Amino acid sequence: MEPLELFRQVATRTDSKIVVLIMDGLGGAPGPEGRSELEVAHTPHLDQLASRSNCGLADPVIKGVTPGSGPGHLAIFGYDPLVWEIGRGVLEALGTGFELEPDDVAARGNFVTLDERGNIVDRRAGRIPHQEGERLCQLLQEHITEIDGVRVFVRVSKEYRFVLVLRGEGLGADVEDSDPQRVGVSPKLVKGRDEASERTAAVVNKFVTLAGEILRNERPANGVVLRGFAKRPAMPTFQELYQLRPAAIATYPMYRGLARLAGMEIIQTPPEEDLEGLVGLLRAHYDAHDYFYVHVKKTDSHGEDGNFQGKVNVIEQVDRIIIPALLDLKPDVLAITGDHSTPCMLASHSWHPVPYLLHAKTLTPDGLAGFNEREFARGSLGRFRLVEGMGLLLAHAGKLIKYGA
Amino acid sequence: MEPLELFRQVATRTDSKIVVLIMDGLGGAPGPEGRSELEVAHTPHLDQLASRSNCGLADPVIKGVTPGSGPGHLAIFGYDPLVWEIGRGVLEALGTGFELEPDDVAARGNFVTLDERGNIVDRRAGRIPHQEGERLCQLLQEHITEIDGVRVFVRVSKEYRFVLVLRGEGLGADVEDSDPQRVGVSPKLVKGRDEASERTAAVVNKFVTLAGEILRNERPANGVVLRGFAKRPAMPTFQELYQLRPAAIATYPMYRGLARLAGMEIIQTPPEEDLEGLVGLLRAHYDAHDYFYVHVKKTDSHGEDGNFQGKVNVIEQVDRIIIPALLDLKPDVLAITGDHSTPCMLASHSWHPVPYLLHAKTLTPDGLAGFNEREFARGSLGRFRLVEGMGLLLAHAGKLIKYGA
Repeated sequence: MEPLELFRQVATRTDSKIVVLIMDGLGGAPGPEGRSELEVAHTPHLDQLASRSNCGLADPVIKGVTPGSGPGHLAIFGYDPLVWEIGRGVLEALGTGFELEPDDVAARGNFVTLDERGNIVDRRAGRIPHQEGERLCQLLQEHITEIDGVRVFVRVSKEYRFVLVLRGEGLGADVEDSDPQRVGVSPKLVKGRDEASERTAAVVNKFVTLAGEILRNERPANGVVLRGFAKRPAMPTFQELYQLRPAAIATYPMYRGLARLAGMEIIQTPPEEDLEGLVGLLRAHYDAHDYFYVHVKKTDSHGEDGNFQGKVNVIEQVDRIIIPALLDLKPDVLAITGDHSTPCMLASHSWHPVPYLLHAKTLTPDGLAGFNEREFARGSLGRFRLVEGMGLLLAHAGKLIKYGA
Repeated sequence: MEPLELFRQVATRTDSKIVVLIMDGLGGAPGPEGRSELEVAHTPHLDQLASRSNCGLADPVIKGVTPGSGPGHLAIFGYDPLVWEIGRGVLEALGTGFELEPDDVAARGNFVTLDERGNIVDRRAGRIPHQEGERLCQLLQEHITEIDGVRVFVRVSKEYRFVLVLRGEGLGADVEDSDPQRVGVSPKLVKGRDEASERTAAVVNKFVTLAGEILRNERPANGVVLRGFAKRPAMPTFQELYQLRPAAIATYPMYRGLARLAGMEIIQTPPEEDLEGLVGLLRAHYDAHDYFYVHVKKTDSHGEDGNFQGKVNVIEQVDRIIIPALLDLKPDVLAITGDHSTPCMLASHSWHPVPYLLHAKTLTPDGLAGFNEREFARGSLGRFRLVEGMGLLLAHAGKLIKYGA
């Protein structure tokens, strides 16, 4: 039996509350002085909490694999990222805040520069600024809203990147890229690999032609290419699987989108991340839900920039602002982890396991000396796959009945 | 998605170097004084390295299963031994140094003693000496080179044991044993379980008859039985899966053969194992490859003999001769482990997990006090399946791009 099916069988509704705090890109690696970001950061509240919790190190996908935000979050939500895949187009759509319906087909688009023969000379259209990309998307959207009975949505994601969403009956997503991934050739006519995807391909090819006509007099962005056609994975929701009433508090659209895939209610946030604001929202909505996913982005942003001190500062802010307020709410179960590691030494996502802290009344504390990778390596949760954490949250919240007689 | 498919998607070629040192049968169990071979051995270099590395204990197959050399090595190379099986005949062929082609069918043979009615009276032909087995194999090979258009190879493996390899088109390997596994009965005529294997069976039965005629006047080895018919597993190579240019430095034929299954280039070694020689070969070929599998056999040999002090001595020699030279080469990633444990107290392979050490710049060291089972039980790698190690090697060498957006 698949773990998800098992949870579906034994999950039960209770009033107890679970809070999962995700510090994006939480895990690190030794910095200039041989200590990681978490080791350098002054985190009295997290350290004290670690001593009273169960801790461990979790691999988001499998050992050695560096996950994108999609696979990392699926694992936190209990969906095995080796089973459930999120296509490039879907993630791009989630990132724009677009609310994908189950049968929508999404693709990632690039504006490109074409020469007079229609061959690509710049695959990123000179990296046009975001505002220009936004203007061009609006231009396309004004002229193209429907093709052959299929609704067409065009949304800018960032600079020269946009997302195309097709909504209509019987559309398949097994469609080849139109992006040839090189210059000197023309964008490819796309083909579907089955009948439903052929229907999608026909619409896509018409869209590309129409877009070329509309952008004819634009420079440098006078063409489009598309890739990563996908539908959202048909995941069962938290309600169906776990009998939960989940809510997401996340500032950035992509994370709200990932939460929506799992069936979470999305709580409205201000456009800029604000740690006090996140806690305030949690407090304000605390009675209405029994599972809260709270997302802090800035740990990852500084990691990606290789800004060691910046990441340390955000960790300290979380310790000072979020942790005491969280503990004041006295959730029955509190987990603190990341969707992946982002060590400043690599300035990118990495394969390093993420620290995982689990706090509840029903556990024997590990008594560790601090909240960091080195201490957590000695924690009682050991080294585990991140997807396994969901069962512990539910169990310590008293939400799983006995399996088998 | 299977992990191997995931690696195939995200593996990328880089100049970084991975060295994997296998001490065959590395792990042990408490000896007379309650300490294991690794605990008794004086290993200053390994101890120092352990303090600066990530360590753990790895189960070669699954907990409790004692692996042969085949499954243990497949796991080290990243092929799950529950998925990829190496038949008895194939392993026997690899052990003789025979270079199996993909469609060859190999079987393990025994010389036996038959009475005047053709019934087996000794399944090992009085354990004839190796030279005698070699002479008889040459005799058979002189008289039998082809049967029904199928090429026939006969190679001695050890004493009364030999390997039979059949090379021809359309041969199946789903063939029953001719070895009845008891005395007092005649060798069985073999049958194939499908059409292609029926073709093989017909050739095998003719071979057994011909061998009986050729050996008619020999004593005690006047007959043959065959078992373990198999083809080599159709494993994708390191090149295909991991984008590596791998090389193997191993003195014993079976380990070279296992490495060849994974697509490794086999570096020529002297016939006798010599630790300084192994390191010299590594140094000499260091520029031409990016993955090195270095195999030390003697740890296992002494373990199999139950020779505690002998195994301790080999471990100390590795510590003194190999480890400093390895570190001098400054590989980007260094792993030290075994293909299985061989505790002297059992004088055989065992199910005990193997110590696993991983050294790279991109990790937070565990700070353990020594290189042994007891210390490694507290390492950050935890307890894991040996097959999972491959991902860590690739990741710390920077050879895996991000999975999922």
